[in-house]
Amino acid sequence: MKILITGGAGFIGSHLTDRLLSEGNEVVVFDNLLRGRISNLDEAVKNPDFKFIKGDILNKEEFFKIFEENKFDVVFHMAANSDIASSHANPDVDFGNTLSTTYNVLLGMKEFGVKNIVFASTSAIYGDAGITVDENFGPLFPISHYGASKLASEAYISSFCENYGFKAWITRFPNVVGERATHGAIYDFINKLKKNPNELEVLGNGKQCKPYLYVKDLVDAILLVWKNTNEQINFFNLGVESRTTVTEMAEMVINEMGLNASIRYTGGDKGWVGDVPQFSYSLDKIHKLGWSANLSSNEAVRKSVQYILEKDLCSL
Amino acid sequence: MKILITGGAGFIGSHLTDRLLSEGNEVVVFDNLLRGRISNLDEAVKNPDFKFIKGDILNKEEFFKIFEENKFDVVFHMAANSDIASSHANPDVDFGNTLSTTYNVLLGMKEFGVKNIVFASTSAIYGDAGITVDENFGPLFPISHYGASKLASEAYISSFCENYGFKAWITRFPNVVGERATHGAIYDFINKLKKNPNELEVLGNGKQCKPYLYVKDLVDAILLVWKNTNEQINFFNLGVESRTTVTEMAEMVINEMGLNASIRYTGGDKGWVGDVPQFSYSLDKIHKLGWSANLSSNEAVRKSVQYILEKDLCSL
Repeated sequence: MKILITGGAGFIGSHLTDRLLSEGNEVVVFDNLLRGRISNLDEAVKNPDFKFIKGDILNKEEFFKIFEENKFDVVFHMAANSDIASSHANPDVDFGNTLSTTYNVLLGMKEFGVKNIVFASTSAIYGDAGITVDENFGPLFPISHYGASKLASEAYISSFCENYGFKAWITRFPNVVGERATHGAIYDFINKLKKNPNELEVLGNGKQCKPYLYVKDLVDAILLVWKNTNEQINFFNLGVESRTTVTEMAEMVINEMGLNASIRYTGGDKGWVGDVPQFSYSLDKIHKLGWSANLSSNEAVRKSVQYILEKDLCSL
Repeated sequence: MKILITGGAGFIGSHLTDRLLSEGNEVVVFDNLLRGRISNLDEAVKNPDFKFIKGDILNKEEFFKIFEENKFDVVFHMAANSDIASSHANPDVDFGNTLSTTYNVLLGMKEFGVKNIVFASTSAIYGDAGITVDENFGPLFPISHYGASKLASEAYISSFCENYGFKAWITRFPNVVGERATHGAIYDFINKLKKNPNELEVLGNGKQCKPYLYVKDLVDAILLVWKNTNEQINFFNLGVESRTTVTEMAEMVINEMGLNASIRYTGGDKGWVGDVPQFSYSLDKIHKLGWSANLSSNEAVRKSVQYILEKDLCSL
């Protein structure tokens, strides 16, 4: 199969690239390398069925060229802004990089007759629901521009399905951790502890509690959904039952760095505006399809901490 | 109160303009006159508290000037593409005129410190649900680009509420008819019958069945919601319990034109791609707030037919 992966040099996209290549597919990665890294594709570039193109989806002319030059069977659309907190100051970050990218992907597919899209959506579309939500939850009032942009993306994917006979696989992710992660709380903690090994400042009260899914478990799930469901729109929460508090994460980082730092909390129940402090959602639908995560949330977080420290990916 | 009404020269917006002026408010209408008509504001222009500015919300510089020059208490954002069927051929129509307009309104409010927005949303966000849906229905998979753009608009309204302390009143409309309507099935039928008074071609099987709300009833409901609810996001289905089939509508037009035409159906259960053929949604929430429509769906449709014929608004 010939597959386009947008954002395929990024954290999640590059794992997907490796897996789809290992299964014998031809893969073209299109990535602007804003957060993606060429080094994430070290394995992929050895494969003759792999091709990397640096470019910006928002540059329609440049982007459409790859549709002209390749007849894709399916697009895995993973490109998006991934730093949710950043767009509080500038909502254009997510309107552009998270929504308009999706819209241009859909336009390209329409123009060049590609009918299948696998989409990286998010638990953030549910907003701060305050209860365990399943896939049929409503109303949908996201509290971050990132969540809004992903919900908007789902909405257009849906209307393109109806209007042009597309088929879609929408997979909604919680926080994802593991090898090649580029930013987030673990990075922040390590950087802060490098500056001051005696005290770690934690935003909020430390009780924010979320499921952290291991990236390779996530890739398993995405591919399982894609291969085993066949509705016009297939949509699944992906995740892990267990959860990790911010305090647990902070303690793991302190512990793995061999430090004895105390934790100081800034207070309040949210780390930042748009943060959903207590989140859990139902995984019954994906479990019924025959998948559950191998690593617990704590195991996934610890693995990620160890990887970042080993590779020395943090720099002051 | 000083109020901005985007799309205030349009079908629904102009009725809202008249009403808000009659209640003693200062009203500024910003409209690109794409479908809006200056003649809809014949009453408004007599009022010294009224001001009309022709302009395009998508031209940010031009649009933001009105925020610079006026300190608004609230924005009624009614501007949107209103011809749902048209964007099948060109999805940019709705991405631009229905979503990006909303996004620019939100940016303008953020930049100039306006905190309150009343928004014209739609039953189309629910897609082709196949059941009677209330405000908490999910999943939300709209089938028209118009519905997708309105859902996307709601999503950003929600994230702007959380990020910048906005308050929102989201009112979801069904089909709306009455004085000053600019297009739609009634117009199509009249135009077809002017060409051929003996036979009326009807798209679909005539059994498409929807609630048609009278525009003045709608304006009552919008203002009631705005004045009587006070959550950060207030959201209501507005509508009428009764419904009208396409066949009933066709018969009313034939009858009001004094003709004896036969009806020929093109067949199929949808009039056009993106059409929701059988729609009804729950009005319990708005009824509990103390509002219900004065005119039935059939009464509203007939009133609209009579108005269009009297004013001779159709032209071949």
